[in-house]
Amino acid sequence: MLKGKVIGNIVSTNKFDSLRGFKFLEINLMEGDAKTDRYIIAVDRTISAGIGEEVLIVTGSSARAAVGDMNAPIDAVVVGIIDKNQ
Amino acid sequence: MLKGKVIGNIVSTNKFDSLRGFKFLEINLMEGDAKTDRYIIAVDRTISAGIGEEVLIVTGSSARAAVGDMNAPIDAVVVGIIDKNQ
Amino acid sequence: MLKGKVIGNIVSTNKFDSLRGFKFLEINLMEGDAKTDRYIIAVDRTISAGIGEEVLIVTGSSARAAVGDMNAPIDAVVVGIIDKNQ
Amino acid sequence: MLKGKVIGNIVSTNKFDSLRGFKFLEINLMEGDAKTDRYIIAVDRTISAGIGEEVLIVTGSSARAAVGDMNAPIDAVVVGIIDKNQ
Amino acid sequence: MLKGKVIGNIVSTNKFDSLRGFKFLEINLMEGDAKTDRYIIAVDRTISAGIGEEVLIVTGSSARAAVGDMNAPIDAVVVGIIDKNQ
Repeated sequence: MLKGKVIGNIVSTNKFDSLRGFKFLEINLMEGDAKTDRYIIAVDRTISAGIGEEVLIVTGSSARAAVGDMNAPIDAVVVGIIDKNQ
Repeated sequence: MLKGKVIGNIVSTNKFDSLRGFKFLEINLMEGDAKTDRYIIAVDRTISAGIGEEVLIVTGSSARAAVGDMNAPIDAVVVGIIDKNQ
Repeated sequence: MLKGKVIGNIVSTNKFDSLRGFKFLEINLMEGDAKTDRYIIAVDRTISAGIGEEVLIVTGSSARAAVGDMNAPIDAVVVGIIDKNQ
Repeated sequence: MLKGKVIGNIVSTNKFDSLRGFKFLEINLMEGDAKTDRYIIAVDRTISAGIGEEVLIVTGSSARAAVGDMNAPIDAVVVGIIDKNQ
Repeated sequence: MLKGKVIGNIVSTNKFDSLRGFKFLEINLMEGDAKTDRYIIAVDRTISAGIGEEVLIVTGSSARAAVGDMNAPIDAVVVGIIDKNQ
């Protein structure tokens, strides 16, 4: 899994119907406590992560497994918020 | 998912029959608002993204799931155009 | 597979129910004996690797195969501890 | 998909029986018109790409989908030759 | 597929039962004739590649397809030795 910080979200009006209602978060990937320039967009369906929060992301076909739908048109999903002050 | 800017398209006369009719877009990947040198080719089946537009791309086996055909011979597909002025 | 050193673990209270009870290890990837900055989070279900230990990690859909559950919401799993003094 | 230039081919006498008869092309990946140092080996089953030609490559499980055989022991396949003078 | 040079092997006493009897080779990835710092561990089940030999490696779910067992807990497998003096 990857660790990243939520830095914003993406709006797309012209998109696949199968993506309607999804929230797309912009994520800066992290290496431990260090921010990197690496950037991905991950779907947040149920976690409701806010900007600035650090999240756990599952990618690839496992993202589809994580949401329990192997037909989901996604390759990255936020599966948890990492607790602060660890 | 990845964010990228459409910079052109590829024509291939000698290709797999299963790819006939597909439009292949050249994409420069982005990290937030910054352009990178990273480059991929993604199929655009229904979005009709134009040169200069910023798009959302799904990769890997999820690209096949996104087009609803796990036998599709593709590993990257444009699934949406990112709205401007966000 | 990847080789990495365990450097910590992640706690996530707000996460997918399907991840309850999983242990998430922070891993610094290695290239032979050299530490790199590359960082991933891998699930440890049965190996009980400790901080400082070097581990073998399986990623992608193969991580789900490794735990014998293609529906597991994970994309990286610790499958072994690498013996010392090789 | 990836864009690359064919720079040679690999011969392997001691290999999996399931790979007998396959042609393995050495490919230098490209970013638009620029050559990179990134290098992969891709199977060419029906395209017959020659050295110096620019090709379209599908990777991962989608390579197996592209050849219509999800049991094919390959993770990269040449699916087309990119036309010149575009 | 990837090209790499075998530089050693890994021993793991505490590992998944499903990995018992597997040989894990340490591989330095190559770009054409050039060695890189990139490093992976690949399973060698039947090829018996020795240290210093250059090998062909299949990764991801295709590694499981290559060994004919989609439940195999592996994501990289040596599928051939590259002939010398090509």
